[in-house]
Amino acid sequence: MKNDFRTIFFKEKPCIVSTYSIVGPKEKGGPLGKCFDVALSDDRYGESTYEKAESKMLSTAVKKVIKKAGSTENDVGVMIAGDLLNQIISASFSARDFDIPFLGLYNACATVSEGLIVGSTLVDGGYVENAVVGAVSHFATAERQYRYPLELGSVRPPQSQWTVTGCGSYFLSKNRKNCPKITSATIGKVIDFGVTDVNNMGAAMAPSACSTISLHLKATNTKPEDYDLILTGDLGALGSRILKHLLKEQNLSVDLNHVDCGELIYNMDEKVFQGGSGAGCSASVFASYVYPKLKNKELNRVLFAPTGALLSTVSSGQGESIPGICHAICVESSDD
Amino acid sequence: MKNDFRTIFFKEKPCIVSTYSIVGPKEKGGPLGKCFDVALSDDRYGESTYEKAESKMLSTAVKKVIKKAGSTENDVGVMIAGDLLNQIISASFSARDFDIPFLGLYNACATVSEGLIVGSTLVDGGYVENAVVGAVSHFATAERQYRYPLELGSVRPPQSQWTVTGCGSYFLSKNRKNCPKITSATIGKVIDFGVTDVNNMGAAMAPSACSTISLHLKATNTKPEDYDLILTGDLGALGSRILKHLLKEQNLSVDLNHVDCGELIYNMDEKVFQGGSGAGCSASVFASYVYPKLKNKELNRVLFAPTGALLSTVSSGQGESIPGICHAICVESSDD
Repeated sequence: MKNDFRTIFFKEKPCIVSTYSIVGPKEKGGPLGKCFDVALSDDRYGESTYEKAESKMLSTAVKKVIKKAGSTENDVGVMIAGDLLNQIISASFSARDFDIPFLGLYNACATVSEGLIVGSTLVDGGYVENAVVGAVSHFATAERQYRYPLELGSVRPPQSQWTVTGCGSYFLSKNRKNCPKITSATIGKVIDFGVTDVNNMGAAMAPSACSTISLHLKATNTKPEDYDLILTGDLGALGSRILKHLLKEQNLSVDLNHVDCGELIYNMDEKVFQGGSGAGCSASVFASYVYPKLKNKELNRVLFAPTGALLSTVSSGQGESIPGICHAICVESSDD
Repeated sequence: MKNDFRTIFFKEKPCIVSTYSIVGPKEKGGPLGKCFDVALSDDRYGESTYEKAESKMLSTAVKKVIKKAGSTENDVGVMIAGDLLNQIISASFSARDFDIPFLGLYNACATVSEGLIVGSTLVDGGYVENAVVGAVSHFATAERQYRYPLELGSVRPPQSQWTVTGCGSYFLSKNRKNCPKITSATIGKVIDFGVTDVNNMGAAMAPSACSTISLHLKATNTKPEDYDLILTGDLGALGSRILKHLLKEQNLSVDLNHVDCGELIYNMDEKVFQGGSGAGCSASVFASYVYPKLKNKELNRVLFAPTGALLSTVSSGQGESIPGICHAICVESSDD
């Protein structure tokens, strides 16, 4: 088996039976505001800390997506989740609320696609009947952990992005009627182009997006135009431009059908510069905006490729560059 | 499907083809010192920071375990790894060294069994030919991140454990002759008994070990005495006693065949109090000490159940208790 062709093809094509999204007040005011299942007016969600609020968002999204699928906690064989916080405490503490086996993941903002791939193999291989996947992030918890406390009022540079307060959850199962299906997936490699600017995630992640997308196209023998949409996670405006440029060097043009979740979620006139980021960005945008279009066949084939920047304050403080990762899944509408 | 019976049975019984272990100088001086593949005399491993040393330990372990299996990087479909550091930078930066798809995990010190379960399903289900799993921890990086910088010389309380500087890696494949096989696995639930003492991990994790082990026994219709060894991860001496007590309440006695990796790795006369801990503790002990005994049939059936404490400095600072998790895999010697 050659390294370049390690794309997974699912025999049973696991279905995404339901999705659930929950976001904060700023995301509510954005272009996708009406698409989310719930938009909070209080980004502390009635809790005493932002961390507790983040964890509660995931718990709500897990509970609700199970309900939307017409199932109960007892039907779920595994909960697969992650977030951006140190030791993924949002996901770990949320899992405490459920009587469901738990797998904790961390691939930064690519966590949702990592989770969907692990969940799909578990469902497809018959190891669990149903799996729930979730990813969450919160502007207040992420900013103070990765950069500066909000109270400092630090000036944000123009290449920066805005961490989304949001969560998306997914209920995966086999053999459900009329549900979009995950047909194939490519697990990404860690790629480092030497970017060291912690405010420029888009540039750090674009090479990994290019690698995974081009490998996926090769392995599936498809072209960019075979997809209604090629949706990256949170490259933002600048990262998207770099991705287009890198793909063109490989004679692949995604000019007409590539969109980035980070570019979709906020209004142009807000001080978010390059757009949204965070594990909850792609997780909530795909769950709320893209999934319904696959369900009603407005879209028939989407390559969903969230990207992650694998840094910590320690690695950056020690002068390390920022490696990126991107996992891609192909989701297709269903006729059965 | 009932919640209590969500144990995975592997159809093809993935083989552990090879293992590799690398530890620090303190572990070298312990009772298992001679078992490890490599024991460093310099715990900075020739690097400028402990974090870089930790990452290099994992990279070495991944390279060497592939070589020991008689394979090359090209044969490996996925690298699955994790560590204790914020944003699992040791694993993420190590993965940068390889042209192998990467899945990053975090379940604290239960990461190695989480990785072995995810890897086994990927191999067993035919999604990848071969998988490499690794987990690593380093005393110096973990102590300063979770507790205090070493230079402070803080006094350690008697209920504390010592983070192992160590790494274990595993090469998983199908249909190899004379290799120990992973026959079944139970993904653990997150269990919180309200322990808030960040120095008392054993007490925080024992309830999850009890839950997973008893669920696994029920699902596989086995008794403790059906195993040559029931090996927990890093409960330490106190945690092990609590586990035995909790299991006895369910009429399960593991008095005769339960050992904890954290109790095995250090000498009694060292100031490690309850023993070793860390993602690299169970990963290196199983790889070096237990795996060879399964290979030469000194042991025939081992229940390997590493445990993790799902806390961060933020969660503890905010007054949260410490939830625990434990994933169990059954590894059996092979006659073919």
